[in-house]
Amino acid sequence: MSSELETGLPSIRQLQNFIRDGKEVELKLLTGDLLTGKIRWQDQHCFCLSDQYDQPTLIWRQAIAFIKPKM
Amino acid sequence: MSSELETGLPSIRQLQNFIRDGKEVELKLLTGDLLTGKIRWQDQHCFCLSDQYDQPTLIWRQAIAFIKPKM
Amino acid sequence: MSSELETGLPSIRQLQNFIRDGKEVELKLLTGDLLTGKIRWQDQHCFCLSDQYDQPTLIWRQAIAFIKPKM
Amino acid sequence: MSSELETGLPSIRQLQNFIRDGKEVELKLLTGDLLTGKIRWQDQHCFCLSDQYDQPTLIWRQAIAFIKPKM
Amino acid sequence: MSSELETGLPSIRQLQNFIRDGKEVELKLLTGDLLTGKIRWQDQHCFCLSDQYDQPTLIWRQAIAFIKPKM
Amino acid sequence: MSSELETGLPSIRQLQNFIRDGKEVELKLLTGDLLTGKIRWQDQHCFCLSDQYDQPTLIWRQAIAFIKPKM
Repeated sequence: MSSELETGLPSIRQLQNFIRDGKEVELKLLTGDLLTGKIRWQDQHCFCLSDQYDQPTLIWRQAIAFIKPKM
Repeated sequence: MSSELETGLPSIRQLQNFIRDGKEVELKLLTGDLLTGKIRWQDQHCFCLSDQYDQPTLIWRQAIAFIKPKM
Repeated sequence: MSSELETGLPSIRQLQNFIRDGKEVELKLLTGDLLTGKIRWQDQHCFCLSDQYDQPTLIWRQAIAFIKPKM
Repeated sequence: MSSELETGLPSIRQLQNFIRDGKEVELKLLTGDLLTGKIRWQDQHCFCLSDQYDQPTLIWRQAIAFIKPKM
Repeated sequence: MSSELETGLPSIRQLQNFIRDGKEVELKLLTGDLLTGKIRWQDQHCFCLSDQYDQPTLIWRQAIAFIKPKM
Repeated sequence: MSSELETGLPSIRQLQNFIRDGKEVELKLLTGDLLTGKIRWQDQHCFCLSDQYDQPTLIWRQAIAFIKPKM
């Protein structure tokens, strides 16, 4: 478990932009689940996604296939 | 196998909060299984989830897709 | 391939208890298989599970979703 | 999280060529999804793929099975 | 890519025994495939399994769920 | 991302032999896909497989279950 998030990487910055802008995103997981919501924060292990009722879901990075802005 | 749990990370703290509060959670696994219960402890490899009969289940971090509070 | 099993971790100790007690367990794998038996030993890569005929099965840690005592 | 992309590796260079040439590619994911588009950038964790409407999708390396030029 | 196989581990030794004894084994993969044959050698990345026609198959450790002696 | 391919390992050498001999192989992926072709090169992350039309496919090591010579 490395202890820092490399904020200089494009992918980390892109996610920080989604967080800052309150962007609604679609997250496809390796389970095949498709989740929708806003990313609240990220750390090395997880993202926190909140849905329309502001319920938080902790999502493990290892489970992510892709993320894209909701159209 | 690194030897410390990074307690400063938001995801680890969020899980510690679930443990402290005895929060009932839903765990989605990469197998597609959905488990429900209370998280008793966590270490670098596993969570221990106990169900309504207080039976412990050791769940590997590698198998987790997401965790959220049960509504 | 790190060379030591961290025997101080709760998950490793829990497994050592299952081994010591000859506890019958259920193992769910990421393949979806559910195996039943007694854990004989563990190392960094594998568990050895023996079934009712005392046949050993080497199970890779990477393949494990969860383990729980058989009810 | 290692901090550098090894630009000397054939696979990284091949991807850089796809980016430079604006090559349309097919990406097969471990979820079974097949995505089509142009790779905009890569870092250690992700590729950014843009589709025909120039919408970006962040794809995690861990989720990739293969990439090939679209015929 | 670490450069040594830890021959002191029970799982590595068990596999060496299967190799030495020409034991016929069943290999379950994370894909769900079940392969049968004799293990010829192992290294950090792979096993080499040969079938009844002595055809070699290179199997990646990451793909293995379990191995057991064929009954 | 480690920076060297360990050419002394049997699995790496076996693959180098397939490359040198222009051997036609079958590749089973963790997605369940079965690909056929000749391996052109390998690095730490990928293989490059070319099909009968000499189209290259970049295949990630993480996605491989097994490789065997085509019969």
